[in-house]
Amino acid sequence: MTLSKRQQEMTKQNYVAETEQTLQYTIAEKVTQLFTPSSHSVSVESKMDLQVNTLVNDFLGEINTNTDVDLNALVSKFTDSKVPVEPYNFDSYVEYLANNVVAHSIRTSSPRFIGHMTSALPYFVRPLAKLMTAMNQNVVKMETAKVLSPYERQALAMMHRLIYNFSDDFYTQHIQNSQSTLGILVSGGTAANIIALWCARNASLGPKDGFAGVEKEGLAAALDYYGYKGAVVIGSDLMHYSFDKAADLLGIGMHGLIKVPTNCNNDVDLQALRQAVADCRAQKFHIIAIVGVAGTTDSGNVDPLVAIADIAQAANVHFHVDAAWGGPLIFSEQHRHKLAGIERADSVTIDGHKQLYLPMGIGMLFLREPQLAASIEKSASYTMRKGSFDLGKRALEGSRPGMALFLHAGLNLIGLKGYEFLIDEGIRKTQYMAARICAMPEFELLAEPEMNLLIYRYIPEPFRGLVAKNQLTEADNQQINQFNQRLQKIQRQAGRTFISRTTKTITCFGENISITALRAVLANPLTTQDDIDAVLNDQIQIASELSISNSLEAAENVA
Amino acid sequence: MTLSKRQQEMTKQNYVAETEQTLQYTIAEKVTQLFTPSSHSVSVESKMDLQVNTLVNDFLGEINTNTDVDLNALVSKFTDSKVPVEPYNFDSYVEYLANNVVAHSIRTSSPRFIGHMTSALPYFVRPLAKLMTAMNQNVVKMETAKVLSPYERQALAMMHRLIYNFSDDFYTQHIQNSQSTLGILVSGGTAANIIALWCARNASLGPKDGFAGVEKEGLAAALDYYGYKGAVVIGSDLMHYSFDKAADLLGIGMHGLIKVPTNCNNDVDLQALRQAVADCRAQKFHIIAIVGVAGTTDSGNVDPLVAIADIAQAANVHFHVDAAWGGPLIFSEQHRHKLAGIERADSVTIDGHKQLYLPMGIGMLFLREPQLAASIEKSASYTMRKGSFDLGKRALEGSRPGMALFLHAGLNLIGLKGYEFLIDEGIRKTQYMAARICAMPEFELLAEPEMNLLIYRYIPEPFRGLVAKNQLTEADNQQINQFNQRLQKIQRQAGRTFISRTTKTITCFGENISITALRAVLANPLTTQDDIDAVLNDQIQIASELSISNSLEAAENVA
Repeated sequence: MTLSKRQQEMTKQNYVAETEQTLQYTIAEKVTQLFTPSSHSVSVESKMDLQVNTLVNDFLGEINTNTDVDLNALVSKFTDSKVPVEPYNFDSYVEYLANNVVAHSIRTSSPRFIGHMTSALPYFVRPLAKLMTAMNQNVVKMETAKVLSPYERQALAMMHRLIYNFSDDFYTQHIQNSQSTLGILVSGGTAANIIALWCARNASLGPKDGFAGVEKEGLAAALDYYGYKGAVVIGSDLMHYSFDKAADLLGIGMHGLIKVPTNCNNDVDLQALRQAVADCRAQKFHIIAIVGVAGTTDSGNVDPLVAIADIAQAANVHFHVDAAWGGPLIFSEQHRHKLAGIERADSVTIDGHKQLYLPMGIGMLFLREPQLAASIEKSASYTMRKGSFDLGKRALEGSRPGMALFLHAGLNLIGLKGYEFLIDEGIRKTQYMAARICAMPEFELLAEPEMNLLIYRYIPEPFRGLVAKNQLTEADNQQINQFNQRLQKIQRQAGRTFISRTTKTITCFGENISITALRAVLANPLTTQDDIDAVLNDQIQIASELSISNSLEAAENVA
Repeated sequence: MTLSKRQQEMTKQNYVAETEQTLQYTIAEKVTQLFTPSSHSVSVESKMDLQVNTLVNDFLGEINTNTDVDLNALVSKFTDSKVPVEPYNFDSYVEYLANNVVAHSIRTSSPRFIGHMTSALPYFVRPLAKLMTAMNQNVVKMETAKVLSPYERQALAMMHRLIYNFSDDFYTQHIQNSQSTLGILVSGGTAANIIALWCARNASLGPKDGFAGVEKEGLAAALDYYGYKGAVVIGSDLMHYSFDKAADLLGIGMHGLIKVPTNCNNDVDLQALRQAVADCRAQKFHIIAIVGVAGTTDSGNVDPLVAIADIAQAANVHFHVDAAWGGPLIFSEQHRHKLAGIERADSVTIDGHKQLYLPMGIGMLFLREPQLAASIEKSASYTMRKGSFDLGKRALEGSRPGMALFLHAGLNLIGLKGYEFLIDEGIRKTQYMAARICAMPEFELLAEPEMNLLIYRYIPEPFRGLVAKNQLTEADNQQINQFNQRLQKIQRQAGRTFISRTTKTITCFGENISITALRAVLANPLTTQDDIDAVLNDQIQIASELSISNSLEAAENVA
């Protein structure tokens, strides 16, 4: 029997009789209707669908990056902390959303929003979002996911194979073996990086000769047992801030995150890295992992992964690659070589919600050794029983949604060649933008782009000669920094185009000179060369109205 | 200019000219169309919308909990680890999804799926899922979220107010103050519990007199500095397994998670808790937090929170309440008293994807003291700059989706009275089911339900007399355990109804007798008394075909 048939049989009278209580009738009816598949609810949902579709099409169809609404005025709309007593009227809430939320949301899909790692998404993610939410699977265990567990394992194995390219036999053996973990699907790259170091810590300070291991005995006891003075993770000073979180969380402390200097190319200085390893060894510090970055958050640079793999191998230390951003270069024949060495990593982070063009909330960790995640395995009597197929056994998170739907669909509906095209196009446009910046006297390129992130700055007219002669003083740089900060804030507030900003020490400029950089991310397939020109011209326009002296005031007026 | 207008102007010729490359034309065109708002893509998306709507309506309209597909046969469909080279055809993929994924997914919304903490959801979450995905905001920072940041803060403040009920002045001061954190929206209760203990650890072992605190110096140095032999978290032996993860992650080790015995009511034994606190103190173990459970995962029992709050206060220790399941009782006038004392907690976990009836992926942590999360604050030069409004500063996760849309909508569209109705109804039906179980000779109720979780077991006919006389031997119990395990597996495999199972030490049955319990969760608003009867009758039917001797074989045949 279907539920809609049931619903027809369940009259109002039956319902009231069944509850056997004096309920406030309208609330009971209203709330029950929200959940019940019936001709009434289907028609209400269809109406809401149409309203949402209109909102979505308007939102996605707009080229401006945001409204110019004042932030304080916007915030002041959200100061009531009382939950409404009665259910709000549906149409009113959708109207409220339209006017207050959707209208002022950031148009991350705009071809002129090229400042952060968000992009337009392929349209199939939208119907799939509805499907995923309607199915409401919980992937923590088979009993609430069943088919999604092997389906997710398959999608992760596909990515694993792109990275490691092991034999057919390897994948046949592990892809659906509940004792093996080729990949872990998580909410984002931060969780993936944390889990990588968690596995590395637990595996390297594991049970031995009656000692139960760091997992059970804790870090202080493990360091004591193994005879270490402390524990560290080593990587470049351009590691993502999620490693700060990981070092803190895992109990090694942020001072235990050794940040090795980078060179002019924003790559880790290999000599300094070798020295750091030797120093830690000499001082009896346990090295949990060495981290290589494949796509720095600032400027998209890739560490020399082969050399780092050699260092890690020689030291017998876990090698983790944070390829949250850069990992998908693996799809491109032309650019894959930039990741050479990634196949030697013990663990690799890749974000689905970045260059796989999937919705927010998809991080992935891949493991070279399918047993590594056993070091963090947990079980419980009511779920994730030992030996079960439950994916929650080896994970940081517990209950989680069926995000694998997006990953699996992306891999199939975009395909190897589709992703290759997207990666190649982003890098091609970045080269175009870099060439434009170099050709325009108003701008200075701050680093040769390695993939599709670009840092540059605006040079106010009085400083242009000095830039050409490489004669800027520190005071000059500070003035230029302030100018760029103001420029970026005004541009953001105006809402026509968007570029982000960051603060970088540009090693090649000399020691300890902190530079405010404008930062472009060229990932959106909708962005054309015309859009890139429009973004740069918008900056020139704003800059022309912003003299060095009046820029402070102007910037402060827009918060 | 709108993007659809742009699209009209962007002809195939222009596009090819622009790329200035010899691309495999069909791939370039296909992939670009996936992203481009145009009349073509809108029509393809609309078609997919309709296909998905049909899938969704069929899925939600079916009363059976699953198909009876063989798990091994199902798994064998997902063994290809190669990413398709060419983009897959759209219609084919939807058909593939329909036949292989949707068809065999667990119907968590079925009124007869009453074994896990999943339920039918209100229909408004489905269009909102599409809206959220289309907007693709990243709440880690204002620049990719803007309005969603204050909007999320408002929704969290509403929940905070329900728990703590501070003054209007308090909420006016903190609700939109970027220096204050009333709540943190995360992917689930596990992350919320981890963050709670992370904050408690960092705040209690913080910077002092030249020592930089555990965050920077690490756990071993902090224990050393403060003169502790180790660090512990104390709670009942029915704490959720996320606390095992937290103890492991945070470096205190799972042995540092002190699990105090529970009594007949599945509540922590207060005398034993006091003793554990005293013992830790005497042995110089630092107590990071004392945990109270508000809704055990097994059976929905609530610890005596007022008494635990007294103990924590006397010991000056952080008091965390894991109300992932039970928190929403706060909405019910009739049942709120069961949570008395929660308002004294320093931190409270509540899951949105449980009894707030929101999609998977919504956990929440609430903080009594709005500055507590400063103990885990991180920043980075490219985002989350100090002093900014960016929500990612005080969080475990980095990039994350705008799940606040669901929370805010739920609070408004269901409202205080709507949630009260849902909570009251679940508990009413649980009482009905408990009464039915008590009235039927085939079943034994294993604990008096406190909210809407129920544990019971089937008693095969030969043992019924002994149960009545309370004369079961350990061997008898083992036989009954095996019978119930098989019963649950066959029921699950048949896919008509669903009840989960757990293994419990029922203290009142005598020491160390491990009991396999059937576990019902009565949260689905669609579940009627008839459905409850159907579930119990299905079990009786299965049991009747399952003699004690043949049950082993039968169960093994269904894996």
